[in-house]
Amino acid sequence: MLPWYNRGMLSEFDLIKQYFTRPARPGSRAALGIGDDCALMNTTPGLQLAVSSDMLVEGRHFLPQADPFKLAHKCLAVNLSDLAAMGAKPLAFTLAFSLPEARAEWLAPFSAGLFALADRHGCELIGGDTTKGPLNICITIFGEIMPSRPLRRDAARIGDDIWVSGTLGDARLALAGYRQEIALAPEVLNAAAERMHTPTPRVELGMALCGIAHAAIDISDGLAGDLGHILARSKVGATLDIDALPSGFMLARQDRALQRAYTLTGGDDYELCFTAPADRREAVMAAAASAATAVTRIGCIDAGDGLRLVDTAGAPVQLALATFDHFRTP
Amino acid sequence: MLPWYNRGMLSEFDLIKQYFTRPARPGSRAALGIGDDCALMNTTPGLQLAVSSDMLVEGRHFLPQADPFKLAHKCLAVNLSDLAAMGAKPLAFTLAFSLPEARAEWLAPFSAGLFALADRHGCELIGGDTTKGPLNICITIFGEIMPSRPLRRDAARIGDDIWVSGTLGDARLALAGYRQEIALAPEVLNAAAERMHTPTPRVELGMALCGIAHAAIDISDGLAGDLGHILARSKVGATLDIDALPSGFMLARQDRALQRAYTLTGGDDYELCFTAPADRREAVMAAAASAATAVTRIGCIDAGDGLRLVDTAGAPVQLALATFDHFRTP
Repeated sequence: MLPWYNRGMLSEFDLIKQYFTRPARPGSRAALGIGDDCALMNTTPGLQLAVSSDMLVEGRHFLPQADPFKLAHKCLAVNLSDLAAMGAKPLAFTLAFSLPEARAEWLAPFSAGLFALADRHGCELIGGDTTKGPLNICITIFGEIMPSRPLRRDAARIGDDIWVSGTLGDARLALAGYRQEIALAPEVLNAAAERMHTPTPRVELGMALCGIAHAAIDISDGLAGDLGHILARSKVGATLDIDALPSGFMLARQDRALQRAYTLTGGDDYELCFTAPADRREAVMAAAASAATAVTRIGCIDAGDGLRLVDTAGAPVQLALATFDHFRTP
Repeated sequence: MLPWYNRGMLSEFDLIKQYFTRPARPGSRAALGIGDDCALMNTTPGLQLAVSSDMLVEGRHFLPQADPFKLAHKCLAVNLSDLAAMGAKPLAFTLAFSLPEARAEWLAPFSAGLFALADRHGCELIGGDTTKGPLNICITIFGEIMPSRPLRRDAARIGDDIWVSGTLGDARLALAGYRQEIALAPEVLNAAAERMHTPTPRVELGMALCGIAHAAIDISDGLAGDLGHILARSKVGATLDIDALPSGFMLARQDRALQRAYTLTGGDDYELCFTAPADRREAVMAAAASAATAVTRIGCIDAGDGLRLVDTAGAPVQLALATFDHFRTP
């Protein structure tokens, strides 16, 4: 059998040219794009550049049989979500990836999924790297923001409301279904899995909240853990109404205990958790409406130590919490 | 046996805190550094941002037993070299990497090697990502450049001299030694291997050449192939004096045929190849002196088709050329 690289495979240059190069467009951010030693990017004077990198690894963040269109969506979505959590406007990104082989059946849908989401946010691919190796996808994204207005993790203040966008827990429900921890009807699993595979980065909401919200984070590892980062960095505590947490549409069909656990600790939702002064509730609702994104008020920042949970009646609730850490979980 | 993640391994947060977070320093580029959703970087008004990503994969770009200090040097050096080839001044970088496990014996020298080179160029680590997986290191680097002065691949002009920095071919000689294609004395192999493992990015030279040189590229895949990119993008040809190519100090001990082959096609040297008008030779030499970097004039840009080789007497030389392509070579 011929070695794989002689079986009509693409060269690196052909791969980039065929799948990841597009004609120059008016208003492009890239002063010099793909094909030189570096991309050159124009940024707007008076704004700051926000930069984030995320790496997704086969077998860790996705399965070998992952749909390449959706995989590309997710890789870019998690980076857009980081911009959203700063209130930054997406500008451009680089894509570096290693692939076992250069197959059109994989590359064509991957590039289609990537550009579909990128175009929705006006975010340009300006460079990157490709190499052979175990499947690994690293995106570095750039956004711009007014220096005075980023949504920082250390900016929560005592008395702030705590809010969350969209719904939580369906991605975790899908994981439980895949792992057969819970028996799910196929249509329930498929619907929940959409939330896991094609999360919606809350970019418009993040931008609309600049100047209104104090602190924000995107929920990648679970609400409790991610809100915990805000509390630690802001040196404040919080009380959450566990029954106010908005369950995903599929999770809402499950029992109360599961809803509590998965909304609080399920990862991979990529919703925003943010804090805002109690006297800005109307402004928050208006920002959410302008971004066509639901938001729910779930608790408040206080002077306590860490996170406390109460039920709708205000009675304390004890839940064993576990958040996600790449180097602690198997 | 306990699972690896219970054997006193570091959590992701501890890993970042212990090895990749440093105290804030005066004049930092990072308006907001490691520990939020994005880094925020200040750039200088009136300059353009140059951005480059390189991904290095175990088994492809380095061996599993690679010295982590040198490996970190090389990962950052190849990115700095891309900035050098644009004439950009290094500002900052992000580091995303997947690791099989979080071991201090590996992380401590890796972070030491990374910061040693970064500090030499005033280039700050402003963010990134860590995850578990096969060893894969992705750096995205940012530099700034005056918009009118980048060294572009498409800027070579007929009549330009062609220059190269430093010496060529020792990295390829080391590869031949490792592969036992050539028997090398241990001290020769070790000296050549230093060029392969710890290349010197020609950052100062690139910056000094802005406004003097026309086109530039860094030599990662071999002089012939990389100069070929300049020729293709600039729609020009070139004639090289094959015997003018400066051999690496270890390669210079080998026979003439090997010197010709390895200086012309050996990769991994990370020297700069650049073109400049013939009437700017003194300016080129002054720039090289200011950067304390040797440069050698090796040929000229002409209206021919592709690359022609001649010997010192001007007679044509035929060499079978092969350059490096990640998706064509095994």
